[in-house]
Amino acid sequence: MGEVLILGAGMMGSAFSFPLADAGHTVRLVGTHLDRDWISSLRETGVHPKLKMKLPESVIPFTHDQLGEALTYKPDLIVLGVNSAGVDWAVQQLGPLLKTPTPTLMLSKGLRARNNTLQILPDIVRDGLAGYGINQVPVGAIGGPCIAGELAARRHTSVVMAYSDATVLERILPLVVASYYHARPSTDIIGVEACAALKNLFAIAVGYSAGLLERLGKASNGALMHNLAAGLFTQALAEIGPLVSLIGGAPASVHGLAGTGDLYVTCQAGRNSRLGYLLGRGLCYSDAKANYMAGDTIEGAELALAIGPTLENLFQQGSLRRTVLPLAAAIIDAISHDLPLQLLWEAFHQNLAI
Amino acid sequence: MGEVLILGAGMMGSAFSFPLADAGHTVRLVGTHLDRDWISSLRETGVHPKLKMKLPESVIPFTHDQLGEALTYKPDLIVLGVNSAGVDWAVQQLGPLLKTPTPTLMLSKGLRARNNTLQILPDIVRDGLAGYGINQVPVGAIGGPCIAGELAARRHTSVVMAYSDATVLERILPLVVASYYHARPSTDIIGVEACAALKNLFAIAVGYSAGLLERLGKASNGALMHNLAAGLFTQALAEIGPLVSLIGGAPASVHGLAGTGDLYVTCQAGRNSRLGYLLGRGLCYSDAKANYMAGDTIEGAELALAIGPTLENLFQQGSLRRTVLPLAAAIIDAISHDLPLQLLWEAFHQNLAI
Repeated sequence: MGEVLILGAGMMGSAFSFPLADAGHTVRLVGTHLDRDWISSLRETGVHPKLKMKLPESVIPFTHDQLGEALTYKPDLIVLGVNSAGVDWAVQQLGPLLKTPTPTLMLSKGLRARNNTLQILPDIVRDGLAGYGINQVPVGAIGGPCIAGELAARRHTSVVMAYSDATVLERILPLVVASYYHARPSTDIIGVEACAALKNLFAIAVGYSAGLLERLGKASNGALMHNLAAGLFTQALAEIGPLVSLIGGAPASVHGLAGTGDLYVTCQAGRNSRLGYLLGRGLCYSDAKANYMAGDTIEGAELALAIGPTLENLFQQGSLRRTVLPLAAAIIDAISHDLPLQLLWEAFHQNLAI
Repeated sequence: MGEVLILGAGMMGSAFSFPLADAGHTVRLVGTHLDRDWISSLRETGVHPKLKMKLPESVIPFTHDQLGEALTYKPDLIVLGVNSAGVDWAVQQLGPLLKTPTPTLMLSKGLRARNNTLQILPDIVRDGLAGYGINQVPVGAIGGPCIAGELAARRHTSVVMAYSDATVLERILPLVVASYYHARPSTDIIGVEACAALKNLFAIAVGYSAGLLERLGKASNGALMHNLAAGLFTQALAEIGPLVSLIGGAPASVHGLAGTGDLYVTCQAGRNSRLGYLLGRGLCYSDAKANYMAGDTIEGAELALAIGPTLENLFQQGSLRRTVLPLAAAIIDAISHDLPLQLLWEAFHQNLAI
């Protein structure tokens, strides 16, 4: 039984303490400066107010200024549960305090644009820590369909754990397996991370069908728009493949839990779907965001804004064909340029491997 | 503008008349002996009672004993809209009346077991017609996410049309394209047909999660079971691939509209999902069928009964590994042997290409 430190006490960071605690580990759950109220509640009652669950006994809450103290217990594993915007902050906190290169596992999802290429967050963290003189930290990630509230309720959850180094993977994987938490190994960390980030973008498109349905109304025979949603879902997966390849991952990861599984679950609910729904109702992005989702971080929209200019450059240079990514291009146009989301049927389903 | 004959005036056969009529064709819609009431209604009011829509003007209804008359208009295309159990009947009707080898397109979905191998329905029809001396009939099929009521409501629908002969495909495909009906070509008819049939089997498994949720109840934090459904959805697609290969199709078809798209839409509603839901609630198959779905044809259960013994033989012979198909095996056990549906987590997600 080991020691695990989780940095970030939001929904996912906190939910991840369940399989760890159930596996017998002591978990130090360190909130960010934004998680102060949740850490207070955990200290007073043991209940996480957003997760609406009492955390297991072996989870010990810390505030962000106690990170140094939490690290003195020499964790076998550090888990990053901050959101994608908090990754740089996390590196800045850990960098000065970390004494040894401790294996790190990221729950945060996203992609960054740098010099006309796209980078996965584990590489940002690894490079960031190296800037503090801490070299060769193995940074891995978890992908797959995992709604935090369900994990905390100990519902069956299947995920993929990715480290590029198979030896590290073999050592870390057994730390986070519980009877209801089924983690499978992958060494394709780029593919897993690219899928995990991109599903947020494409969930917007699938969500669009629900909004369009509301705009046009039920048909006279009561018909809904599942055919449309399924067509968009299929096209989404067909476009994640080439994007994964572009970033340097294995396109086959799209067919696993990180791609297919996570897109499926993300289309069931959540903020990306809701933005898609609002676009489907006919709102433009700026209107939807300002008037309906002002306080929300919409990871898919953030991603569109982060990677949109890079993809547009690659389209213009001709090193990436827009015809291969008609749905991604349409979502990026809608979000970056506030244009109506256009479904280009002629371009869809042309690149399916059939 | 051509002549098209549709045999089978159920939901899907009748819905298929919409894109054909909108493309400008004259459509002769011939009911089976079971469709008598619907044909009467179509004659009197133009409304299809089950589809709850008025069919286009250029759709002309015929009773099954008028098939010969309908054929005198020399259709450019014959569409089979009967259900999988009606395929032999359709061949028996067409065989004696058909004068020339007319291209045929199947909407019926299923697989048949013969001599320890599995066969797609278009091959059954082709061989059946050859028995009447009508040789070299090109028999193709439509796959992909297509709920009949939505097609009839002219909702955007994306499908794949498959003929093994690319020249035939090129000639037939343009006949059935409308502004809301997006048909893509494939020459992998075995893969498309195998996917189209197998999705019914696996939709039972995804539906299981809804029943299990009801049996166990919502979690104290309100959590549902989307993680479980997504894990099963991913596993389902991972098993359709090897099954497609076994039958002689291209496993890549799984990632297209016939596989991913159709499984997605089939999991949204319908009888296969409902059977899964009842199994999830803890009922055994015989109980669920007799007491809750007595009058219903459940295509996924029919398929399990049809192909189960063949797969079990292949498992026993060692020519197919049960570990590659743990979910398919569990569904077949549940339906053929009336056993509780067992989710074998240790075996799942092991064969994902990651």
